[in-house]
Amino acid sequence: MSQHFFERHRETLERAVEAIHDRGYWSAYPEMPSGKLYGETANDDGKAAFEGYLNTYFEIDQPGTIGKVGKEASPFGTQLGITYPKADVEVLLPAMQAAIPAWRKASPEVRAGVCLEILHRLNKRSYEVAYAVMHTTGQAFMMAFQAGGPHAQDRGLEAVAYAYREMKQTAETGFWEKPQGKQEPLKMNKKFNIMPRGIGLVIGCCTFPTWNGYPGFFASLATGNAVLAKPHAGAILPMAITVQISREVLKEAGFDPNLVTLVANDPGQPMASVLAMRPEIKIIDFTGSTANGDWLEQNARHAQVYTEKAGVNTIVIDSNDDFKGMIRNIAFSLCLYSGQMCTAPQNIYVPRDGIKAGDQHLSFAEVAKAIADGVSKFLSDPARAVEVLGAIQNEGVLKRIEAAHDLGEVLLASQTITHPQFPAATVRTPVIIKLDATDQSIYMHEHFGPIAFVIATDNTEHSMALVSKAVREQGALTASIYSSDEAVLSAMEEAMAEAGVALSCNLTGGVFVNQSAAFSDFHGTGANPAANAALTDGAFVASRFRVVQSRRHA
Amino acid sequence: MSQHFFERHRETLERAVEAIHDRGYWSAYPEMPSGKLYGETANDDGKAAFEGYLNTYFEIDQPGTIGKVGKEASPFGTQLGITYPKADVEVLLPAMQAAIPAWRKASPEVRAGVCLEILHRLNKRSYEVAYAVMHTTGQAFMMAFQAGGPHAQDRGLEAVAYAYREMKQTAETGFWEKPQGKQEPLKMNKKFNIMPRGIGLVIGCCTFPTWNGYPGFFASLATGNAVLAKPHAGAILPMAITVQISREVLKEAGFDPNLVTLVANDPGQPMASVLAMRPEIKIIDFTGSTANGDWLEQNARHAQVYTEKAGVNTIVIDSNDDFKGMIRNIAFSLCLYSGQMCTAPQNIYVPRDGIKAGDQHLSFAEVAKAIADGVSKFLSDPARAVEVLGAIQNEGVLKRIEAAHDLGEVLLASQTITHPQFPAATVRTPVIIKLDATDQSIYMHEHFGPIAFVIATDNTEHSMALVSKAVREQGALTASIYSSDEAVLSAMEEAMAEAGVALSCNLTGGVFVNQSAAFSDFHGTGANPAANAALTDGAFVASRFRVVQSRRHA
Repeated sequence: MSQHFFERHRETLERAVEAIHDRGYWSAYPEMPSGKLYGETANDDGKAAFEGYLNTYFEIDQPGTIGKVGKEASPFGTQLGITYPKADVEVLLPAMQAAIPAWRKASPEVRAGVCLEILHRLNKRSYEVAYAVMHTTGQAFMMAFQAGGPHAQDRGLEAVAYAYREMKQTAETGFWEKPQGKQEPLKMNKKFNIMPRGIGLVIGCCTFPTWNGYPGFFASLATGNAVLAKPHAGAILPMAITVQISREVLKEAGFDPNLVTLVANDPGQPMASVLAMRPEIKIIDFTGSTANGDWLEQNARHAQVYTEKAGVNTIVIDSNDDFKGMIRNIAFSLCLYSGQMCTAPQNIYVPRDGIKAGDQHLSFAEVAKAIADGVSKFLSDPARAVEVLGAIQNEGVLKRIEAAHDLGEVLLASQTITHPQFPAATVRTPVIIKLDATDQSIYMHEHFGPIAFVIATDNTEHSMALVSKAVREQGALTASIYSSDEAVLSAMEEAMAEAGVALSCNLTGGVFVNQSAAFSDFHGTGANPAANAALTDGAFVASRFRVVQSRRHA
Repeated sequence: MSQHFFERHRETLERAVEAIHDRGYWSAYPEMPSGKLYGETANDDGKAAFEGYLNTYFEIDQPGTIGKVGKEASPFGTQLGITYPKADVEVLLPAMQAAIPAWRKASPEVRAGVCLEILHRLNKRSYEVAYAVMHTTGQAFMMAFQAGGPHAQDRGLEAVAYAYREMKQTAETGFWEKPQGKQEPLKMNKKFNIMPRGIGLVIGCCTFPTWNGYPGFFASLATGNAVLAKPHAGAILPMAITVQISREVLKEAGFDPNLVTLVANDPGQPMASVLAMRPEIKIIDFTGSTANGDWLEQNARHAQVYTEKAGVNTIVIDSNDDFKGMIRNIAFSLCLYSGQMCTAPQNIYVPRDGIKAGDQHLSFAEVAKAIADGVSKFLSDPARAVEVLGAIQNEGVLKRIEAAHDLGEVLLASQTITHPQFPAATVRTPVIIKLDATDQSIYMHEHFGPIAFVIATDNTEHSMALVSKAVREQGALTASIYSSDEAVLSAMEEAMAEAGVALSCNLTGGVFVNQSAAFSDFHGTGANPAANAALTDGAFVASRFRVVQSRRHA
């Protein structure tokens, strides 16, 4: 049975392995929530499945369950009322360890096959996962479907492809025959065993529980480790569904389902830090705050730690040939999921003497106003606005929005929108503040949420120096520039490569700086403080296992 | 010129890339110190070159030289009298950083070509390096030639092959074309830049300065970093020659020679720890004591740290069909370079009720005596003995030999041998002590040097449990077993895979547990406390660079 899954998905895996090299466009899972692609009843079925979870106990048949936890609330205004198993890790972790030997002895093919079958079933249930993501993160439905479903699945598949390729780079056996001149050659048979590290802990965030969680989850599982999912207390359901499907596939493939388990907790219960310090945990994948990520890097020394933390993302405006396209693009980037993306731009640098836009010269004030107006205009229809903004995930974001209005001249004030479908949803539009380059104490750190600063700099060179400083000191996941001058673009490419952040140039169409495409864009670089790893590259998978050999004479 | 080196060595590199996958026998550099292979005058030339260094200043034209240092002494009884530039790192490190951009922009091919040309020239000067290694480490000439020359060069080439393969796994550019239904597809061009981490520090040891140093040295250099060699104060010359050749090749290829520099120091001057904490140092490759390695892992948090530290290597004797072959093999392993190899066996577990050897039953005492007699016999001819034993590298080893005699019943006492060619050389034969399994406080840590324990255990299962414990708690680079029972061999393979140490089974011929062959055997696993990395695998190279992308519409 277990080999069957590999055969079933072999072509997908092989195509994924090509894609991670070529880095053109490729996707295994259709991103459109369409009945034609997912089945005409898929939306209704998914919604019903989601609603079926509400106010019930989400059972996972894992050992060491000692009660129920869970207090998720939908940013769209309701309590989910779902509870999950409360885990006794003294029972759960040994059960996970006991499951590893048979899993590590299965081949890379078998493990990849199981992972791809899990992803395949997740894909079939993309609507159900989408509603789960929507009502935990506050993402509007379309984003919840795409980022929480097929895009996350693509990121998971990408990690499996990297893991598979890495494991296959060492032959399973070797024959060593060393000439000895006129004497018989020395001959040895060698075996090279892929040995997992142990249990991988995946610490999730409350904004992209699957998209950020799947790479580490599948990279660890594919390389022979067990995986303990510890979702954010505010976004448990999407990972609970993932764990349930994983256990079902593992069981069908003849493996111990305890290779994948869930530890849920209530808000305010410390759990991630407790789990991270357990000696059984050998790998940690973390998405969250800089403080927590730094703590893990400093303290969880017994484990391989991969972190994605906070950063300050920047747009540099130098000059432009398509001003309207630029404004539309920036406005959308600021509104998308209310700036609650780790890739959302925060600082927008504009020379204080203005810019060249086509044949025109536009003053700093004109550019700043155009950005604010662009956002206003884009959000003028509340029904459309909420489908981009989604809802505010948590109280912390709300407080930052409020506080931001006192940080400088308000170019655009945040507004409350009543969601036509969910009147109790917490919806806020972006606040945009005008600052000067000298206000570094304000803009040189992250203000997570729909908060942007338009910052007057001396010139583009100055803007570039400020981005480099922010990337090096605060970290960043994205940088963007608009310029019609090739020399400026080249200088920015050079500066951002040196600073260690991915750059997008002149985005005026349907690609946004917030978005990174699986199999093509690397998310994070590992080269600046925002993340110590990239999703996904060779370094992200290579240390999740070791090769341990034995040899004997042939 | 720079591409020329790649073309010149392309076949070698391609063959090396095949070899690191297949892991059969392969070597790029002939291991026999033969006039036919290296030129009839190669030995004389190499010796003359070495002697030319004695009592002179070894000039390296690197910036920031503020005096002279160096106090190496040959374990064969002479002072070398060589001095080296004393470095002002405040000048040296910035000069190295300034050299990186042009190097990183050169292609993986160009960098690999430069590295292979350096290795090629090192190979041509293998005799010179051999004398340098011999008279710093105390290795006998044959080992100094092989391990210090061609085998070290093979290990360096292996690291280049891994680095090259890893860098080539991401396309340099990608074309991303995403269908948009009936609309025009979105099209982007993407660039993926290989970005080095910065300066790699290679902290060398006094026993295998090149063999242990080259993997990190070449892995960092090939991936675009600058490399600062900080050899052990007792074994500077081999790395000084390496640095000199590297700078010469870099210059010829049109690069700044400050990509490779040397910091030498006098014994007792703290230097490695000072350099390691410099923020410019982004990668550290360390070979040495557990205390120093652990310190680096704990403190040099700003850098990628790869360590090879101490361990307790073990031989388990269960049963045997070729008793004489086993004894000869073990005796040689104990004598080779006076046990001063990180791979040398220390603990030999024998069931207290004895073993089956072919048709015979041999008591514990008989096995223990056979080992002691085997060593005695092997060393009976002093002229032959010194060519295997070499000389004792330092005072610490001498003290441990002396102290070992008080640790238990002496099965074989260490003896002083007068070296026929170097009467002032410090030559000692191994001491072998009988212990009981209960004496864990004695044998459960490393006694570096020609010190072995024959330890009585309850049975082979007990022996295997003790090895596993030693590997998990103290670390190990090698484990070995003798058994004629396939079930026992399988159980040991399973146990050592789980413990995370390379295993050799039934070595009775010309392969010794101390030896690991480049391109086939992994040295260290990274899965036990003796080393946090293996020489060389994907994980050893993958984090030495990052990929930083830029994208724009096509």
